[in-house]
Amino acid sequence: MKKVKIALMGLGNVGRGVWMILNSNKEEIMKRSGYEVDVAKILVRDLEKDRYVDVPKELLTTDFNEIINDDSIKIVVEVMGGIEPAREYILESMKRKKHIVTANKMLLATGGDELFEKADSEGVMFNYEASVAGGIPIINGINESLTANKVEKLYGVINGTTNYILTKMEFDNLSFDEALYQAQEMGYAEADPTSDIEGFDSQYKLAILSSLAFGTKIKVENVYREGITKIESIDIQYAREFKKVIKLLAIVKENDGRLELRVHPTMIPQNHPLANVYDSFNAVFIKGNAVGDLMFYGRGAGDLPTGSAVVSDIVSILRSNIDIDNLNPVVKNNLWDKEIGSIRDITSKYYIRLTVEDRPGVLGEITSVFGGMNVSLLSVIQKGIDNDNENKVTLVLVTHYTKEENIVESIDSICKLNSVYKINNLIRIEEFN
Amino acid sequence: MKKVKIALMGLGNVGRGVWMILNSNKEEIMKRSGYEVDVAKILVRDLEKDRYVDVPKELLTTDFNEIINDDSIKIVVEVMGGIEPAREYILESMKRKKHIVTANKMLLATGGDELFEKADSEGVMFNYEASVAGGIPIINGINESLTANKVEKLYGVINGTTNYILTKMEFDNLSFDEALYQAQEMGYAEADPTSDIEGFDSQYKLAILSSLAFGTKIKVENVYREGITKIESIDIQYAREFKKVIKLLAIVKENDGRLELRVHPTMIPQNHPLANVYDSFNAVFIKGNAVGDLMFYGRGAGDLPTGSAVVSDIVSILRSNIDIDNLNPVVKNNLWDKEIGSIRDITSKYYIRLTVEDRPGVLGEITSVFGGMNVSLLSVIQKGIDNDNENKVTLVLVTHYTKEENIVESIDSICKLNSVYKINNLIRIEEFN
Repeated sequence: MKKVKIALMGLGNVGRGVWMILNSNKEEIMKRSGYEVDVAKILVRDLEKDRYVDVPKELLTTDFNEIINDDSIKIVVEVMGGIEPAREYILESMKRKKHIVTANKMLLATGGDELFEKADSEGVMFNYEASVAGGIPIINGINESLTANKVEKLYGVINGTTNYILTKMEFDNLSFDEALYQAQEMGYAEADPTSDIEGFDSQYKLAILSSLAFGTKIKVENVYREGITKIESIDIQYAREFKKVIKLLAIVKENDGRLELRVHPTMIPQNHPLANVYDSFNAVFIKGNAVGDLMFYGRGAGDLPTGSAVVSDIVSILRSNIDIDNLNPVVKNNLWDKEIGSIRDITSKYYIRLTVEDRPGVLGEITSVFGGMNVSLLSVIQKGIDNDNENKVTLVLVTHYTKEENIVESIDSICKLNSVYKINNLIRIEEFN
Repeated sequence: MKKVKIALMGLGNVGRGVWMILNSNKEEIMKRSGYEVDVAKILVRDLEKDRYVDVPKELLTTDFNEIINDDSIKIVVEVMGGIEPAREYILESMKRKKHIVTANKMLLATGGDELFEKADSEGVMFNYEASVAGGIPIINGINESLTANKVEKLYGVINGTTNYILTKMEFDNLSFDEALYQAQEMGYAEADPTSDIEGFDSQYKLAILSSLAFGTKIKVENVYREGITKIESIDIQYAREFKKVIKLLAIVKENDGRLELRVHPTMIPQNHPLANVYDSFNAVFIKGNAVGDLMFYGRGAGDLPTGSAVVSDIVSILRSNIDIDNLNPVVKNNLWDKEIGSIRDITSKYYIRLTVEDRPGVLGEITSVFGGMNVSLLSVIQKGIDNDNENKVTLVLVTHYTKEENIVESIDSICKLNSVYKINNLIRIEEFN
């Protein structure tokens, strides 16, 4: 059996998963790759930290030079996360003709071009299946299996933390804060949950997926972003009345060469496959002009699922028979130039929840503002009286399809009405057609 | 732009899809593969038949020699179906060093080994993504993305016709015959629907998937098979009472190196992702020891979805930079030897519907037979009186987990009781744990 030496950079959650899989599934990996994979070095920050995994101490190092200066190490696996020094170490490793596997979404989403170009010019492979949606093979799916398609739309539930929180709010009637606390207790949410609950994590991932699916360069800032912190139990109850479910959805659509890219809470029909993606599960739903509807579902995070993606990337390098003169072609992420649309230009249905004064004529004032902006209303619900104040009522409006611009301007005007106390929430509705 | 000549063998449903995609998505395919794909010949049986697609007549031929004798044709796409002459033509084409793409499940399931070996010895690529589950990239998923995993279980809804029929029975309360008729009207079922409704189609596909997922040789006859013809509306109603859905499920599990392989109607929990796969959609659910739960969902048939898989296989060959001395490694389908278990050895819960005499003591006679065989009952439902005969009642039993052997012998004994008129149905229950 041939042997290959690899190095891990990082031994956190994902690094631990990679180590465990390389050990427990040694036989499978040998038979499928033709190689015995030998982890020669593991770069860590602290040699003394308890790792909760049985790694021989002599493999650990705090010195990156021990990795790049060892020509017998052929593959470097970056699972440390963050921009620097991950970026520098990857570029240095490529210069020394080492193939790279990374799980680093932030680095890919913000500086992917530089890394792709370097891999190309150095003739090394650069695999990153684990960077989006953990164990779900969505990168391979797009890069290898959708090559016959023009992708029209892509929708993703690609953040497990927020999906867990929304699931708990829906089924256990928890408030957002209670559900967040529970997610933290379960280890699904970080002590500082901002990146997840404000949608930054999904924004990075959507930038990566869109670049690949549409063969173009998407910058993170091209993706409109809204988190789930404003979702209240009452919105989830109203969604149920409309036979809908609220998900933090990552959406990209192409219309006449222009892309709309957005991450925001979205009401989707209860019977859509994405609506049944619960707890910390992830899924990516794609509409291709040949394949039609396609969905990939699975674990979007966790040591073993993400480790599974990393190790499959290692096996893919070992099976590629790559050499410097015969570089395995990769899908370049700049095949097309696409225009990027603004969020103001999208067309959607909208759910709007307001608190208004309880007196005759108020509804008329509000609906005539919408009418003036050509926004037509699909349904209006007014229920009971606000508990705090007998003079306030909750009003829920659902619009027909309309341009976001018209909604924004309507809301601007409505805010100024004396009879309107508060716009509590505005949630876009997606019907997948 | 480099050009490559290919030949199609067959211009039915799938061949038409391939032709349409190569034309409508020409730009995408060129950018992703680096090649302009030129269909040089199309083998058909009848030159005059109306093809419902705009193919230049001069490309059509009835003579296979025009394809193998043309050295400029590098890839042969077999979409004619059936065993012969597809098998012979593929072997001949391999001999002439042509790469092969096929959508032929029957050929792969019954004679795959010969084709894999020939491809290996001739140094040509042999791709078959379209052979299972149409547009769903399940072959690539198993071969490329699950390489780090020991697959533990695989469950598939992999026949669109039966899933359509069961969906219609569930939602529109149709009888089996009515639903089948509607499936035929919709073009989802053939005039002779035997292959679908008796489970042969799923059996072929499960043999292919299991060979790949478990790295071993599975023969079609290793797969236990039951169709859906015995399912009645009343069974679907009972399933609903138990919060279950009936699917024609293809199942493979490994227990201590022994595989159980079976295709049969199965009651599964309503909230499982596979339960929400409706109409003619397909899905494959896999449990890997690293990745955990993973599901691929999409269109399992149809000209464009299946064509999408065929064309992605063509692109994969074009991007492989393959040459004779540097053969792209493929997952061999004989990596492990596995024992194949008998259906009598499986453990399951069972739903059993019987028609029995309506008199005191009958239930006791039946339950004591089960008790004697160590089969314990989870629930017993007896409702009303049979319409046809006041002396008959329907009895529905659900068992705890038990060996199939014990069920078979219990049923044998119960059949002999004077008080039992008929065993109407026996449906296995899967709880995915």
